[in-house]
Amino acid sequence: MNNDAIKTPLRIEADYLIETAIDPMQAAEIMAGEQSSGTFRAVPGETPELKARAGARVERLVALGPVDAPSLPGGTKGTSWTRAEMTLSWPLDNIGPSLPNLIATIAGNLFELKPFSGVRLLDVRLPAAFAQQYSGPKFGMAGTRNLSGVYDRPLVGTIIKPSVGLSAQETGTLVSQLCDSGIDFIKDDELQADGPACPFEDRVRAVMAAVDRAADKTGRKAMVAFNLTGEIDEMRTRHDLVSDLGGTCVMVSLNAVGMSGVVELARHTTLPIHAHRCGWGALTRDPMLGWSYPAWSKLWRLAGADHMHVNGLDNKFSEANESVIASAQSLSDPLFADAPMRAVPVFSSGQTVRQAAGTLAATGSPDLIVTAGGGVVAHPDGIESGVMAMRQAWDAAMQGVDIAVYAKDHAALASALKAY
Amino acid sequence: MNNDAIKTPLRIEADYLIETAIDPMQAAEIMAGEQSSGTFRAVPGETPELKARAGARVERLVALGPVDAPSLPGGTKGTSWTRAEMTLSWPLDNIGPSLPNLIATIAGNLFELKPFSGVRLLDVRLPAAFAQQYSGPKFGMAGTRNLSGVYDRPLVGTIIKPSVGLSAQETGTLVSQLCDSGIDFIKDDELQADGPACPFEDRVRAVMAAVDRAADKTGRKAMVAFNLTGEIDEMRTRHDLVSDLGGTCVMVSLNAVGMSGVVELARHTTLPIHAHRCGWGALTRDPMLGWSYPAWSKLWRLAGADHMHVNGLDNKFSEANESVIASAQSLSDPLFADAPMRAVPVFSSGQTVRQAAGTLAATGSPDLIVTAGGGVVAHPDGIESGVMAMRQAWDAAMQGVDIAVYAKDHAALASALKAY
Repeated sequence: MNNDAIKTPLRIEADYLIETAIDPMQAAEIMAGEQSSGTFRAVPGETPELKARAGARVERLVALGPVDAPSLPGGTKGTSWTRAEMTLSWPLDNIGPSLPNLIATIAGNLFELKPFSGVRLLDVRLPAAFAQQYSGPKFGMAGTRNLSGVYDRPLVGTIIKPSVGLSAQETGTLVSQLCDSGIDFIKDDELQADGPACPFEDRVRAVMAAVDRAADKTGRKAMVAFNLTGEIDEMRTRHDLVSDLGGTCVMVSLNAVGMSGVVELARHTTLPIHAHRCGWGALTRDPMLGWSYPAWSKLWRLAGADHMHVNGLDNKFSEANESVIASAQSLSDPLFADAPMRAVPVFSSGQTVRQAAGTLAATGSPDLIVTAGGGVVAHPDGIESGVMAMRQAWDAAMQGVDIAVYAKDHAALASALKAY
Repeated sequence: MNNDAIKTPLRIEADYLIETAIDPMQAAEIMAGEQSSGTFRAVPGETPELKARAGARVERLVALGPVDAPSLPGGTKGTSWTRAEMTLSWPLDNIGPSLPNLIATIAGNLFELKPFSGVRLLDVRLPAAFAQQYSGPKFGMAGTRNLSGVYDRPLVGTIIKPSVGLSAQETGTLVSQLCDSGIDFIKDDELQADGPACPFEDRVRAVMAAVDRAADKTGRKAMVAFNLTGEIDEMRTRHDLVSDLGGTCVMVSLNAVGMSGVVELARHTTLPIHAHRCGWGALTRDPMLGWSYPAWSKLWRLAGADHMHVNGLDNKFSEANESVIASAQSLSDPLFADAPMRAVPVFSSGQTVRQAAGTLAATGSPDLIVTAGGGVVAHPDGIESGVMAMRQAWDAAMQGVDIAVYAKDHAALASALKAY
């Protein structure tokens, strides 16, 4: 999308997919009331002037047609249900440019409203004041390339596997192997943070020693996303340790920490934030409830997430490829005309050499990170071949050569195609 | 529940409701693998010793019977689907007693797993180390009674209405009226925090002046829950302002701030935390996805929430009364045998005089807060009658007198019964 296409609204705007047994416009007006000055009955102070000043407004309603049965239980009883898309808007003066209060407003007490048998937040557009309050990703793709030394192709990465159970020293040994194999990017699993079995500080020291040793040989330092998910002071301390030891990335589980914690980390960090979305399924898997990825990820981009997980093509989860592609593409949509705040899409989950061409076709750009766990470390000829095969698969994709053809004179790729 | 009934586990335990097209035990094992040492294929380092040490375990599986169609899209294809309840356990050593990392573990990358067409977290039990790391509610019911001076009956409260749109001075004027009417408890709406139209500091100063003026007359200070939802430093500053001005409660929107932010606030606070659950519907409204209230609220109780919203009987939302009752009752279930960490249930949403008897019957105790917005301020005879009617309704309930009988010589209640 061209930046010029972005029109920065004066009011906060949110789009919803709704389903209701009553007149959709009436339902929309109820939501607008509940999410601003109204309550279930008229109260003395809600004057027309106050409503005009502070009330939410229904800006748009497009009926999508009827459905046979309600998607969610508990809604107003009826005999037919209509779906619609609608847009609500709020005056910025109600909450100011505050991300936590934005969440309470656009995604607060509305999913349970009785007139609805479905409510899903589809998108959000924000006044320019939010771009003054929050600066978005500090690094994005350009900064990630500068820190990792990887240009003109995706960063090929992996996840420490087994996810949990390795000691700090064992993790360091594995990272040594990975770095010697030419990997660009390594991340902790989201299940590995700072447990007694593998303390954060011990792990970072062992891993950075391995990274530095490899960099002395190869001249290139693999980017490692250390999972610092935790309480506020813990995250600051862990970040500073990574930074002091020359690390180049930190990882955080967005839903586990929450918005205020991630904003605090983003204000503090001098390293890219690799944002993990674990828990996301609870917010999105029902297609008539919760959040769409474009709306949800916009808030985290604004908060400062540099790398955003988007799942992967042909993933081991329940998400369809079209949804993965739409998510990845949405990260390039500018948040503001003069502050696009683009985040780097991270493809993961069951990734092997087989998804390279499709992923590139979907994104139209090599500005991405791909992480393969089993897809790298379970390569039948070992980790080095695992990394090489992933690089070869992406070389083939970027040259527009069929992977099977390319494999004919690339042994690691050929071996991977047999295994995966 | 008797405290003695609580068995504190050595491992982290979580119960799930699942639905799957494959063998439920196989599905359960896949979830255990994904949420610990496994990935989609065997990796070199996942030895039997490592699995035994770090792997999640299926502790229990109870089949509940078949269903005709999958509840959620994207799961493994099949011809029949089985529901089951299952329990997973994890060694504490994987993550240590960390609430954010607990969330990433028990409610992380599992809602999207392909073998499942339904995954809902039902309950959680935690090793004693969590009770050492987190101290739970600092005030609970006893502290709330001491600060508000209300004993042996529920705190009768209201919400500032209109929710948004009043200036700080207008809010102060409304609070004056409410205090003069004998209200016990007042809360900001979750949509009102620190917007330019009603800045937090101005509002707290105006409201506390009103509270103090009334207390000079009546000898009792209404408890006001000021919504300090925001970023970390903002919440600390706002808390300190409330405390400095003699306020006795702060309110935070849990889902908007997130766990790390709420933990930080809880460590800092010298006042009860009134915990708002706005956004909760997205996590719970699909009965085969997300979180149950008992599991979700346990984590916030551990973090330090004193007052937990549970919706209300006959509410304006889509939640059934049985669910509301189960939620309220769960807040009394002890988290640990020697650290019950009980939270105060807050009943709200469309509450009027009509729900008093039913609510008391459900909780079996007057240890609760009830907040009525329109149910107080929209009373036809004015706010004073609105407060009086709510008090009378609860007096009747606690005396076991039918509300219609009690209304015969209680005019405010009689009037409320006509209006609501």
